[in-house]
Amino acid sequence: MKREIVAIYPGSFDPVTNGHLDIISRGRSIFDRVVVAVSVNQEKTPLFSLDERVQMLRNATTGWDNVDVDRFEGLLVNYAADRGASVILRGIRAVTDFDYEFQMALMNRRLQGKLETVFLVPAEKYTYLSSSLVKEVASLGGSVEGLVPAEVLQKLQLKLKTG
Amino acid sequence: MKREIVAIYPGSFDPVTNGHLDIISRGRSIFDRVVVAVSVNQEKTPLFSLDERVQMLRNATTGWDNVDVDRFEGLLVNYAADRGASVILRGIRAVTDFDYEFQMALMNRRLQGKLETVFLVPAEKYTYLSSSLVKEVASLGGSVEGLVPAEVLQKLQLKLKTG
Amino acid sequence: MKREIVAIYPGSFDPVTNGHLDIISRGRSIFDRVVVAVSVNQEKTPLFSLDERVQMLRNATTGWDNVDVDRFEGLLVNYAADRGASVILRGIRAVTDFDYEFQMALMNRRLQGKLETVFLVPAEKYTYLSSSLVKEVASLGGSVEGLVPAEVLQKLQLKLKTG
Amino acid sequence: MKREIVAIYPGSFDPVTNGHLDIISRGRSIFDRVVVAVSVNQEKTPLFSLDERVQMLRNATTGWDNVDVDRFEGLLVNYAADRGASVILRGIRAVTDFDYEFQMALMNRRLQGKLETVFLVPAEKYTYLSSSLVKEVASLGGSVEGLVPAEVLQKLQLKLKTG
Amino acid sequence: MKREIVAIYPGSFDPVTNGHLDIISRGRSIFDRVVVAVSVNQEKTPLFSLDERVQMLRNATTGWDNVDVDRFEGLLVNYAADRGASVILRGIRAVTDFDYEFQMALMNRRLQGKLETVFLVPAEKYTYLSSSLVKEVASLGGSVEGLVPAEVLQKLQLKLKTG
Amino acid sequence: MKREIVAIYPGSFDPVTNGHLDIISRGRSIFDRVVVAVSVNQEKTPLFSLDERVQMLRNATTGWDNVDVDRFEGLLVNYAADRGASVILRGIRAVTDFDYEFQMALMNRRLQGKLETVFLVPAEKYTYLSSSLVKEVASLGGSVEGLVPAEVLQKLQLKLKTG
Repeated sequence: MKREIVAIYPGSFDPVTNGHLDIISRGRSIFDRVVVAVSVNQEKTPLFSLDERVQMLRNATTGWDNVDVDRFEGLLVNYAADRGASVILRGIRAVTDFDYEFQMALMNRRLQGKLETVFLVPAEKYTYLSSSLVKEVASLGGSVEGLVPAEVLQKLQLKLKTG
Repeated sequence: MKREIVAIYPGSFDPVTNGHLDIISRGRSIFDRVVVAVSVNQEKTPLFSLDERVQMLRNATTGWDNVDVDRFEGLLVNYAADRGASVILRGIRAVTDFDYEFQMALMNRRLQGKLETVFLVPAEKYTYLSSSLVKEVASLGGSVEGLVPAEVLQKLQLKLKTG
Repeated sequence: MKREIVAIYPGSFDPVTNGHLDIISRGRSIFDRVVVAVSVNQEKTPLFSLDERVQMLRNATTGWDNVDVDRFEGLLVNYAADRGASVILRGIRAVTDFDYEFQMALMNRRLQGKLETVFLVPAEKYTYLSSSLVKEVASLGGSVEGLVPAEVLQKLQLKLKTG
Repeated sequence: MKREIVAIYPGSFDPVTNGHLDIISRGRSIFDRVVVAVSVNQEKTPLFSLDERVQMLRNATTGWDNVDVDRFEGLLVNYAADRGASVILRGIRAVTDFDYEFQMALMNRRLQGKLETVFLVPAEKYTYLSSSLVKEVASLGGSVEGLVPAEVLQKLQLKLKTG
Repeated sequence: MKREIVAIYPGSFDPVTNGHLDIISRGRSIFDRVVVAVSVNQEKTPLFSLDERVQMLRNATTGWDNVDVDRFEGLLVNYAADRGASVILRGIRAVTDFDYEFQMALMNRRLQGKLETVFLVPAEKYTYLSSSLVKEVASLGGSVEGLVPAEVLQKLQLKLKTG
Repeated sequence: MKREIVAIYPGSFDPVTNGHLDIISRGRSIFDRVVVAVSVNQEKTPLFSLDERVQMLRNATTGWDNVDVDRFEGLLVNYAADRGASVILRGIRAVTDFDYEFQMALMNRRLQGKLETVFLVPAEKYTYLSSSLVKEVASLGGSVEGLVPAEVLQKLQLKLKTG
């Protein structure tokens, strides 16, 4: 019998973008299950509450039967162990990403040697996309249509009173 | 009749450095007009007020007839449209600059397809120069003579009471 | 009366790709004239002869009235002076490009202080595109449709006998 | 019933190093099958013949039941399709790797949209390791013990007459 | 008579890691004296007080007769002059380090031309190590054993109440 | 009694540039002796013979009493041991340098654990300088005055018949 490979895709998702969905979609095509894990630990005040972030992700991934959305607290490697995951999934867009991601991958491996970090390249059109840039543009009144799911677009406008 | 190419050079300019002036000088030699646009949006508390920053830039660019100094609020691409600009001008010094600048260039192009971001290389001697480093050095009592215009040097000393 | 700004876009163009055309198109929208300058100096044996490369570029830029295609030999800065150019135009795609381009920009500035190197970012879809990759893929029988002009596609197939 | 995920790990392997084996080992822990594919296309004269390279890889991966060693010619994406693979596996060590790998990943995706390139980070101790560096050191009489499998160590010494 | 070369190794050391000790150890093997200089200037609230940081460094470097631990305030180049130092010692791990370090090295050289910044590469196993990552992992309950000296391990557990 | 620290500065020096001399000058100010070691191993045909390269270096470093010029063959770490050196000295100019240099530093450390690679930053004005760029510019008739010692300038002109 074949073992099942579970991949954790961790992040803040404040809010989810189409770049995140692109990586989830790619991840679920090569792993048996992708668990999108929204981090509870917050350094900065998020724009969207944890519940909102989880809900928007769930709505955006409806219909993808091998994708779960969950929240996690504490050390990612512990959460991965709880979920029986052997892969951490990360999108990588640019060189400055790379240094940080490399550092985290090696630290996580040290904390839990059986956990592999796997990097995927997003579609070119999402190369420049990040949650913080989406929020910055939206807060200044710019359109982020096509960069986030429809529900996020609507919620951003409400939140930022720019609609 | 020839169209006029206007380039926007956006930034915080807190304060203007000789590196900024180097880029403005190069920009004005290849574009018909350079509009130095001081950003009103502030994430952090600036050392110099918006008025001070604009005034120091105006004094430093006196005599350059095709350079304007202005302030802008909101989305850069909207401001560029208001000014009839087709170019965003940016100096690029190092690789970590590059990733951020690339991201902004692609986002701005998406927001306004007719606006091109153009990168210029400053003189080598200004490679290591930034407003924040100038402030840090000056606040610790180091000399930044030769790195900023004379007026800025004087104002920094007053502001930081290190003169 | 307004001065005319001429930009030189130098390269091997062995062969021209849609990435090159993207940069030429952007360049001609912000400069008065773009001179595409095919280098006669060859380190390696090109796939296409100098005449073929020039001709394919001419055909691909037909209808762009402010674009010239020319060949040059010797030092780029001398050629630029002959053409009355004040700008060298370069596309920049990735970090490893950046180091090389930076080095050339500073050397060219040293050789001729009035010549500015200007970097433009190509469309995201051409980020991964280069003449050598096009040749490699085509020589292995892969399709490069959409990555090069139709004429180049046809000539590549003839040249590589893969059609 | 679960689909099987096959990952292709392509390269020259001239010769295989412990860094390659590290990536193969990690790859086989998260994918159902890893096909190590030795490239027949050669730009440069290899030190070891294709047969030697394949044989050394087979010997080094004996006992790993879900690892195959094969050779391939022509376009990687075609070979992957023949093998029913949906993943290209690559180790990534440093920033200059990254640019090249990114470019290849995007080109391969364009040639075959269903094929994902997946990057893994090798153990830190193999960060600086490459086949060409191994050959350079060995040819100058330096020890590469611990960097390559025992058989490769022996064959390198014979080949380079440094033993 | 031979002059003595003194190297300053500046930082926050909040707290000292085995990566720092690796660099100090390498530095003291090639310079006559290494002065570890704990910065008094604080942008952010440190986890450990200045006294704690100095004391942990002193304990960790006991037995290294040509290593001093000190604190400094103000401009590093002034402190270096006071100590008769001609070298600033820095570990360099990754590309994003590099840009920042390059900038600081050139600024410090401008402030004091006789002071050379010297970069050393840490052991591979410490490539991913930083004080902030150590604090993040420890605060989430992860083990940092082997990454910091025993005393730091103990103090981290007390401080973070995770022991 | 104080031990003497010897630093090896290895390279092809085909030909020596003012950037090399800048690094030698900095190196000799912080180490007791700098041995400039011209590599006999040649991948490519050099423009200047080994004897010419050594002689030009000797002439350029005359008067620097703690600088030797020598040639070496085989493994750098063995040569360093023969000379009693504990330091390899390297200039580092840009990010792509960095990856290669990092790789070599870690390999050399593995081959000889007591040998530290030390990186220095050249003067900004030499950031873009390399022997190959000097040869390329000179061969196309460009002036490299100020970038190489006077003797090299003269010999380049003779060699390239461009004087």
